[in-house]
Amino acid sequence: MMATRVLFPLVVVDVALFCVDDGGLRVLLVKRALEPEQGRWALPGGVLKPDQDANLEAAARRVLRNKVSVDIPHLEEIRTFSGNERDSRGWSIAVLFCALLPRDQVQALIRDKVEAVEWADAAKPGHRLAFDHTEQLFTALRVLRDKVDRHALPLHLMPEKFTLTALQRTCEAILGRPLDKAVFRRRLKGSEDLVETDEFERGLQRPAQLYRAREGFAFMA
Amino acid sequence: MMATRVLFPLVVVDVALFCVDDGGLRVLLVKRALEPEQGRWALPGGVLKPDQDANLEAAARRVLRNKVSVDIPHLEEIRTFSGNERDSRGWSIAVLFCALLPRDQVQALIRDKVEAVEWADAAKPGHRLAFDHTEQLFTALRVLRDKVDRHALPLHLMPEKFTLTALQRTCEAILGRPLDKAVFRRRLKGSEDLVETDEFERGLQRPAQLYRAREGFAFMA
Repeated sequence: MMATRVLFPLVVVDVALFCVDDGGLRVLLVKRALEPEQGRWALPGGVLKPDQDANLEAAARRVLRNKVSVDIPHLEEIRTFSGNERDSRGWSIAVLFCALLPRDQVQALIRDKVEAVEWADAAKPGHRLAFDHTEQLFTALRVLRDKVDRHALPLHLMPEKFTLTALQRTCEAILGRPLDKAVFRRRLKGSEDLVETDEFERGLQRPAQLYRAREGFAFMA
Repeated sequence: MMATRVLFPLVVVDVALFCVDDGGLRVLLVKRALEPEQGRWALPGGVLKPDQDANLEAAARRVLRNKVSVDIPHLEEIRTFSGNERDSRGWSIAVLFCALLPRDQVQALIRDKVEAVEWADAAKPGHRLAFDHTEQLFTALRVLRDKVDRHALPLHLMPEKFTLTALQRTCEAILGRPLDKAVFRRRLKGSEDLVETDEFERGLQRPAQLYRAREGFAFMA
């Protein structure tokens, strides 16, 4: 048998970290302090360290801790980006992870290898991103929106009790477009994640029933 | 700045190749001819070769061609499996791909590094698989079934024209459970992928309208 030459690819992990604020859906960007792509805005990311990381997701969590002081128990894998073209250092694999967090749970701070951090408009980040990070961002955005559009309710972003109107507004902020109220309400009827309470919100309009997430609800499952 | 030691992980690609026959949903397994895990049944897979492969998907397609003579234009990435435990050769990354093909388009032949091939019951493969391939198989199976259950119709498995009953049977074979006819028909009404023809199938029962897939339909999109 002929011996086959195996070259080792560079393996990096990148994270699209989303949150919702009054301006809509935001994504965390960092300004790179080191080469390659020094001074460019990018998704937070870094090189896999097999001697430190239990697996790729652990690597992504380590990178978030070290670069922007964000500690997240679970990241969802989106997909890989690979080949000879995407990084000047050579044949590389980027494994993209994603999370959607409540705004007040993420205090992104400037730490190692980062010059600045910014919560950019997720759909229009306003910078040409480093590497293939624009493609990565839009891939993560599409997966997140498909998920919210089709079957997942972002109940972890809501207060403990909330109205269906407030939930609709949050979904609309993620999707970047208005939803039809009747269609949305019909979809909610089939959801096992949503639990009716016997409380009402009283305001200027007629009282609106309050709901909560079922115990054990997980958006990322 | 301290220099950081970077160890290079082993990178492999694995493929869960599904098809439907009279026995239900099947997955392609190969019996490994070489170490590690020689003689064990496994998903077809192999080591990434950056000097040959344009990207990870191309690597997976090369592995299928070389191991079982199967040539597929597109594979869908499911997710990665990684860490120190899954392969005796050391810290490794397996990138899992998946495809669902018409049975008559796949003539899996024994080629390099393979002792035997088998189309096993996808939900009960009947072998303890090599590495973490049992977990990989069930992950791919869950993703495929979720997809067919929620939004994707496997129209590429159907003949050019088909009845809605035949389509329901194919979905049921993939899902491994019967579907409620009324619920299924309601779902089909909302599908943009399904086109009514003005032809009917005449058989023992009353004539059944024939349908076709819309031009440009893609199951893996």
